[in-house]
Amino acid sequence: MKSRRTFLKHLSVASAAAVLPIQTIAKEMAKQPMIHQVYFWLHDTANTEEFLTQAVPMLGRCKTVGKFIAGTPADTEKRDVVDHSWQVSCTLFFDSLEDQLSYQKDPLHLEFIEKYSSMWSTVKVYDIAI
Amino acid sequence: MKSRRTFLKHLSVASAAAVLPIQTIAKEMAKQPMIHQVYFWLHDTANTEEFLTQAVPMLGRCKTVGKFIAGTPADTEKRDVVDHSWQVSCTLFFDSLEDQLSYQKDPLHLEFIEKYSSMWSTVKVYDIAI
Repeated sequence: MKSRRTFLKHLSVASAAAVLPIQTIAKEMAKQPMIHQVYFWLHDTANTEEFLTQAVPMLGRCKTVGKFIAGTPADTEKRDVVDHSWQVSCTLFFDSLEDQLSYQKDPLHLEFIEKYSSMWSTVKVYDIAI
Repeated sequence: MKSRRTFLKHLSVASAAAVLPIQTIAKEMAKQPMIHQVYFWLHDTANTEEFLTQAVPMLGRCKTVGKFIAGTPADTEKRDVVDHSWQVSCTLFFDSLEDQLSYQKDPLHLEFIEKYSSMWSTVKVYDIAI
């Protein structure tokens, strides 16, 4: 039943803007846990090990981040539906949408972008309400 | 240092096919934990709530799956890098690449595909060595 609750909770957040006062929206944001899933495609010249071991761990140290997992493409079977073309991923858990919003402005996050954004050609993000 | 170990471990799995006997590759597969991250784009006519609450939980009950998290797009800020266009996601943790391979053939997984694959137009997978 957790999934059903999650779905209804998500619907309530999604439709809140249409009908609810701003305080209520803020309250919904404060209660919605989420995963912020990021995939990086690095330039050929970029040092993948440096990016994985020096750069992305900075994101994990941002104040509002819960669990943080850095990753690389797993050596699983090649199938049309599986994208193995990226080089580094981060999986960040947040207790709320608000915490993710704070993370976007965290000084360490901004420092990461300034210092390392020249290393990637593409970044793709999926924000998952859970 | 965990990330560095992960990177080296991944490299060793990725390059194993070139130099190591099959038993050694199997051993590496057995030790590599991973996330199997799946995003579904459903047909307009599909019932998202049914898919979220009846269909994908079947995947979470497959034998070799560790932690299972179903999700929907979080109501985060609209940015070019964020894809909010999908409808349902699953985050599946496996203790090893072998466990993910077994999951692909799990009877419950095959039943899920047979019963519900008509509901989605696109599925996208990212396999993450962690």
